[in-house]
Amino acid sequence: MKITLFIATSLDGYIAGPDDDLSWLFTDADYGFTDFYDSVDALVMGRGTYEVIKTFGKWPYSGKHAVVVSSKTEVETSTPDTVAFKGELKDLSENLKAQGYENVWLVGGGELVRSYLSEGLIDNINVSLHPVLLGTGIPLFPDGFPRTMLELEAAESYDAGLVQLQYRVKKKKA
Amino acid sequence: MKITLFIATSLDGYIAGPDDDLSWLFTDADYGFTDFYDSVDALVMGRGTYEVIKTFGKWPYSGKHAVVVSSKTEVETSTPDTVAFKGELKDLSENLKAQGYENVWLVGGGELVRSYLSEGLIDNINVSLHPVLLGTGIPLFPDGFPRTMLELEAAESYDAGLVQLQYRVKKKKA
Repeated sequence: MKITLFIATSLDGYIAGPDDDLSWLFTDADYGFTDFYDSVDALVMGRGTYEVIKTFGKWPYSGKHAVVVSSKTEVETSTPDTVAFKGELKDLSENLKAQGYENVWLVGGGELVRSYLSEGLIDNINVSLHPVLLGTGIPLFPDGFPRTMLELEAAESYDAGLVQLQYRVKKKKA
Repeated sequence: MKITLFIATSLDGYIAGPDDDLSWLFTDADYGFTDFYDSVDALVMGRGTYEVIKTFGKWPYSGKHAVVVSSKTEVETSTPDTVAFKGELKDLSENLKAQGYENVWLVGGGELVRSYLSEGLIDNINVSLHPVLLGTGIPLFPDGFPRTMLELEAAESYDAGLVQLQYRVKKKKA
């Protein structure tokens, strides 16, 4: 099973501006999202990300198994194909694997990304770097996880100024 | 006069790891630095960056006019062609311009970058994105400056996994 972080950020590493502002995100093109989305069979996201996505209106991920992770109290889920999980991320990975899921999209947010990086559980990182410095907001990589070496697999730049970078996470030797 | 931020960062936006660790920086190739360095006639850096560079041994920027900026007490400079500056960055730009300098390299670090961005004084940003997540360290873009729109001018990826991104800063209308 592969876990892929696929996410958009500003050049200064924010996934949202103040008050969950996403107005700076490019929506003029697909930027590989549909192909990626078609390739995944499960989604994992943190509680904050879940709450933000719910405000968009209709749940956009119907038909895909979605897991909302929280470290403290279990989240009440009210959207299609969505379950809550509270516990160790390693156990979540084992559960998903046992259920036959092969390609997991780690949707975000930053706190969950930090936990996944701390556990060494991310296999691939695909970052869509937007040509903007937000100056403040919600960081994709909040500090406090071990140094993680990456291997660049692809880099593509688009006319609109977005650069999409695809990395493989080098696993530490056990 | 053009002011260009030319700098290396980790994917998570650090210019140095803990204790000014730069061991993760690629030194196997030039990555366009020499051409860039040849194009500039003045350097501006913060006090912390100055102190770190001094620990490298021989001052690497002899023959280029270097300005060490501090917001509080004026720095005592002891290296060739180096002067200290304490005051408003706009005045520093006016001074440099009046002295005939045309291409200024903003060397770093993060605090000075934030001040320059707050004043809207950066013209170009050239970031060499290294394939590593440091997890903690000294941020290139510490939070607390106004949203800044960029225009991607070039993106180049190297076999070693480094991606060099070149942006023009869009100026706010006065």
